[in-house]
Amino acid sequence: MQEKLPFSCDYMKGAHPSILKRINDTNMLATDGYGTDPICEEAKEKIKAACGCPDAQVEFLMGGTQTNAVMISAFLRPYEGVISADTGHVNIHEAGAIEATGHKVLARPHKDGKLYAGDIRQFMTDFYNDLNHEHAVFPGMVYISHPTEFGTLYSKEELTELKAVCDDFDIPLYLDGARLAYALACPENDVTLKDLAKLCDAFYIGGTKCGAFLGEAVVLTNPEKIPHLFTMIKQRGGSLAKGRVLGIQFDELFSNDLYYSIGETAIRTAMRIRRALEENGYRYYLETPSNQIFIVLDNKRLAKLGEKVSYEFWEKYDDESTIFRLATSWSTTDEEVDALIEVLKEIANN
Amino acid sequence: MQEKLPFSCDYMKGAHPSILKRINDTNMLATDGYGTDPICEEAKEKIKAACGCPDAQVEFLMGGTQTNAVMISAFLRPYEGVISADTGHVNIHEAGAIEATGHKVLARPHKDGKLYAGDIRQFMTDFYNDLNHEHAVFPGMVYISHPTEFGTLYSKEELTELKAVCDDFDIPLYLDGARLAYALACPENDVTLKDLAKLCDAFYIGGTKCGAFLGEAVVLTNPEKIPHLFTMIKQRGGSLAKGRVLGIQFDELFSNDLYYSIGETAIRTAMRIRRALEENGYRYYLETPSNQIFIVLDNKRLAKLGEKVSYEFWEKYDDESTIFRLATSWSTTDEEVDALIEVLKEIANN
Amino acid sequence: MQEKLPFSCDYMKGAHPSILKRINDTNMLATDGYGTDPICEEAKEKIKAACGCPDAQVEFLMGGTQTNAVMISAFLRPYEGVISADTGHVNIHEAGAIEATGHKVLARPHKDGKLYAGDIRQFMTDFYNDLNHEHAVFPGMVYISHPTEFGTLYSKEELTELKAVCDDFDIPLYLDGARLAYALACPENDVTLKDLAKLCDAFYIGGTKCGAFLGEAVVLTNPEKIPHLFTMIKQRGGSLAKGRVLGIQFDELFSNDLYYSIGETAIRTAMRIRRALEENGYRYYLETPSNQIFIVLDNKRLAKLGEKVSYEFWEKYDDESTIFRLATSWSTTDEEVDALIEVLKEIANN
Amino acid sequence: MQEKLPFSCDYMKGAHPSILKRINDTNMLATDGYGTDPICEEAKEKIKAACGCPDAQVEFLMGGTQTNAVMISAFLRPYEGVISADTGHVNIHEAGAIEATGHKVLARPHKDGKLYAGDIRQFMTDFYNDLNHEHAVFPGMVYISHPTEFGTLYSKEELTELKAVCDDFDIPLYLDGARLAYALACPENDVTLKDLAKLCDAFYIGGTKCGAFLGEAVVLTNPEKIPHLFTMIKQRGGSLAKGRVLGIQFDELFSNDLYYSIGETAIRTAMRIRRALEENGYRYYLETPSNQIFIVLDNKRLAKLGEKVSYEFWEKYDDESTIFRLATSWSTTDEEVDALIEVLKEIANN
Repeated sequence: MQEKLPFSCDYMKGAHPSILKRINDTNMLATDGYGTDPICEEAKEKIKAACGCPDAQVEFLMGGTQTNAVMISAFLRPYEGVISADTGHVNIHEAGAIEATGHKVLARPHKDGKLYAGDIRQFMTDFYNDLNHEHAVFPGMVYISHPTEFGTLYSKEELTELKAVCDDFDIPLYLDGARLAYALACPENDVTLKDLAKLCDAFYIGGTKCGAFLGEAVVLTNPEKIPHLFTMIKQRGGSLAKGRVLGIQFDELFSNDLYYSIGETAIRTAMRIRRALEENGYRYYLETPSNQIFIVLDNKRLAKLGEKVSYEFWEKYDDESTIFRLATSWSTTDEEVDALIEVLKEIANN
Repeated sequence: MQEKLPFSCDYMKGAHPSILKRINDTNMLATDGYGTDPICEEAKEKIKAACGCPDAQVEFLMGGTQTNAVMISAFLRPYEGVISADTGHVNIHEAGAIEATGHKVLARPHKDGKLYAGDIRQFMTDFYNDLNHEHAVFPGMVYISHPTEFGTLYSKEELTELKAVCDDFDIPLYLDGARLAYALACPENDVTLKDLAKLCDAFYIGGTKCGAFLGEAVVLTNPEKIPHLFTMIKQRGGSLAKGRVLGIQFDELFSNDLYYSIGETAIRTAMRIRRALEENGYRYYLETPSNQIFIVLDNKRLAKLGEKVSYEFWEKYDDESTIFRLATSWSTTDEEVDALIEVLKEIANN
Repeated sequence: MQEKLPFSCDYMKGAHPSILKRINDTNMLATDGYGTDPICEEAKEKIKAACGCPDAQVEFLMGGTQTNAVMISAFLRPYEGVISADTGHVNIHEAGAIEATGHKVLARPHKDGKLYAGDIRQFMTDFYNDLNHEHAVFPGMVYISHPTEFGTLYSKEELTELKAVCDDFDIPLYLDGARLAYALACPENDVTLKDLAKLCDAFYIGGTKCGAFLGEAVVLTNPEKIPHLFTMIKQRGGSLAKGRVLGIQFDELFSNDLYYSIGETAIRTAMRIRRALEENGYRYYLETPSNQIFIVLDNKRLAKLGEKVSYEFWEKYDDESTIFRLATSWSTTDEEVDALIEVLKEIANN
Repeated sequence: MQEKLPFSCDYMKGAHPSILKRINDTNMLATDGYGTDPICEEAKEKIKAACGCPDAQVEFLMGGTQTNAVMISAFLRPYEGVISADTGHVNIHEAGAIEATGHKVLARPHKDGKLYAGDIRQFMTDFYNDLNHEHAVFPGMVYISHPTEFGTLYSKEELTELKAVCDDFDIPLYLDGARLAYALACPENDVTLKDLAKLCDAFYIGGTKCGAFLGEAVVLTNPEKIPHLFTMIKQRGGSLAKGRVLGIQFDELFSNDLYYSIGETAIRTAMRIRRALEENGYRYYLETPSNQIFIVLDNKRLAKLGEKVSYEFWEKYDDESTIFRLATSWSTTDEEVDALIEVLKEIANN
């Protein structure tokens, strides 16, 4: 289909072969619907075990925007909003999904796509010190993603500090793990699933961008914090009649440590691309450790690149140049990378 | 998994083998995301052709509740609500998804699950005759389903009359076709896809319950009526990153007339079950032509049935008996039906 | 202005003279805004004393629809709806204000405008017995009004029973007292403000229809049940910059027992009208004890009545006749009643 | 009540004596409700005449937050948000009222509280140039206020330029005139009501802060742009049963040019205060022409000021000093200003 080299995003191909096999193998089994089948049950147990959190509630949803809208509106009271980096997915790329549930996104300036505990603490303190704060939206939770929109990573220490601020102000910390497998596969990463289960009130383990056809697994570490989460998922259109389609995929992702290994190819191939970029004098927009690479390039060269490579337009840098993204995935092949490096060289030397 | 005979619903198994094959065949192709790939494009063209409506806009969503919430909130202005049968899916089984978008469901008494033009006309006339109607929710569109929640069917004449009322009051007619393939396969049905495209302002062609893993195809006959529908789908969490997963399935459903034939097995096997029910003195809750059968049975016999058969509890009939549903599907086998008939006989004769 | 005899509603004239005097007397005082002034404080203390509920939170809002939308959306979680009589104000006359906050009104059949404990208990029990109830809107609170839309009254026993059902299912009971002063002035009424404070989780004491220019006083008996109620009022546009305008009026209504006596004129004059109606063979739509009278009259006679009397169209009764309402108020004069009775006689005898 | 000198805001006292007189004079008249009475009709005619816009629709609401929420949600489609200065009232001081209607506030950096045409044009152009803009909230209208939150004024030329951008992108321009009377009374102001009616798709004429007890008059210049505005007002709790309370006040404000003269006292007294501030070496946070003055003062001096003067805390300036606001109004007396100036001198010289 796509004749160009496929580097625009990490959801260009189908599912990991193991997942596809399970879907084939289970196709004619009959099960109950809406996630009440035994495969979903088993997948949930595996995820709870992987998170070291036997008392958690795990629910499968279909996509990230949906998951964020459900979880954020489930945590918040009507007078509350969610703190997010101004570059956060919920603030920019979800077509107002959070606001459509009635809640403000309280956008804070990011640093490399990240929020920092000190800034949040200051913001919260200022909010409560403002004598008129009862006329304003209360900051009711913190939303972060790991990796971030820019592919950067939180350290365990940074997450621990963020959680400490949240605890001090008694608000939940929620983490969007749309690309979590790629974080877990990064050598720079020191955050495990068990850490997330300890440090977050809820987070989701991304499937769609990490080798599944679709699906995200929400982990709510203390189910009492959101009674009747299933009904809220249903209300927001996030419940699948053939719920097992999600369960099968996550069951496979959490068998044989697939979720830990599935990101490795992406990270290894991204490293190869980075070396080639550096050797050929390309300029990063910012340095990132995971499967996304952000580059600033003059528009003429970018047009040339675009003839052979499928890339993602990020934003205008200035009148002459553009920020664009290259992304690898579990399915990136060395042949694709070889060909990309050829193109990168050619363009650099013209 | 399911050890019992699988008759509780029409989404108990995976996907039709042809669909599964296409998913396998296309797995390692690389395409763009969010439904902008060529397979989605082709599937949309096939659906427009099948509907005889080349100017329509076709969009793929993941599930029915989601599709209804998106389309109803997209058609309505804030002061409007949607007319539905009181038994309508949007009124009862969607956890308040419509109200969560800010709109009232204006429930009207059903007859066999259906709305009738005369009743709607009276309701609309009374509304505008009420001197205080500006203090009330305006009836802004009509929601029906075909087949209905009870598996009953509209005739082409009934739909034509409903559309005439809608036109007289300048409100859209929207049809939920979650189980449309089963209507199309009914000998009693005289409504075609082309009729729907002429008589409805929008409708959806159900995939999830009609042989796909998941997915519904919305047909908006005049795209000018809802600008930026894509963004509204995205906002409500209905847009899939790997959008092609939906496109592939609908492309297959609309190849080789699969969508027309896929319901035939369900209708044929439902007929076999109906004969057995009648021969053994069972009592219908109401008579239905399609793949759902509603039966009233005393609780003791139902408990026995439940030991061997997976059925759907519908509602309490009285203190001694219950309304339950048996459903067939594209995947129902004659062996399953044989076994079910044995059970039905056994229970009837005890 | 109004040349006709003013009986269409109880909000046709300005404010009770005592209230007007206080507004004049306080006009040039300078106070802080948004209800933080000392007059509001004093009014709140008086209301808490009248309710025998020193720990309650009292807030002033501007109108009934607003108050209902704020309180109902504040009590409910996203997956919940509010039980109301199908004739309830929130279900019919508020233009979808509740649904606009995202919540379904769960309309139940009324009897004389009232809900009964037995019916609610059955509804709640059926809901939880339905195996699919997690796919439906949870009944999350009960809304009633006293007097009801039809001017009927709950007895203390009926309220006690309703509260018992609510307690059994752990949902709040909320009472709309838009016309509460008229209930309190009815000889048939055995419910006091102190009873309401014991039996309701929240209720509002109506000002607009009971002698104030505008304003409703919400009493939340246990403030911990709705943290940050002020911010929710502000968010829904219910907070007045010159909040004292509301405080002054309620301070006066709760001085010298004015709120208890203000309804007496309305009840006495309504009784005079009822006697005249009965003596002249008019037919009630239903019998009511308070300040609203609902009459069925043939359209020809009603047209004649309408030449001299301002009445409220209620609804079509049949093709020949109409249900209309006459309402008295704190400001109804005996001269107005005399003239009305003359008209009633004249029309009856033609 | 308020023992301190009343300069914290412009809504500290009751209503202008002429308004109070009209409320007294009309108190016992009987009229229909919900703004359908003849006084409201007359007031609307006067406002349309003052705006030179006979075809406009005028509606009275109770407060500013309410008016903004109604008008913004009425103009926007679900996929759209409203552009506002980051300091705009809708972005900061309304407790998330806009988001509660489902729409994002698209906050843009302000200059002296104002938005500029060039910035908006760039923002709109960038939005449509972004290849992924269909995944984002569409900028669907522009919200400004005059005077702004900081008391600054738009020139007629600036408004004309803003309107040109709006026209180019086919989105409405909406103006919040909560303090419009104070703008109209400023010598610096060159914008008339007739200009606003030509340059804005809708705007509101503030009553609450400009001499009324409460009330804002919305002017929708082309009523076809928002069908059934009344029902939307009702739904958002903005419709007053005794609607005439608003009509009477606006009828008076638009009799004898009161709305034009009512701000003069405020502007004259603000000028006196400014002279005193300058003579005593106080430092403005920013220079403003209308009735609000923003001052930076060290916390020790501010504490002293606060002993005698009621001022408004604005925000922390740095660890040692604070931004605070002094506001005059139609009701500010020269005696109050004399006393304030004494205090300002005293504090400056200590």
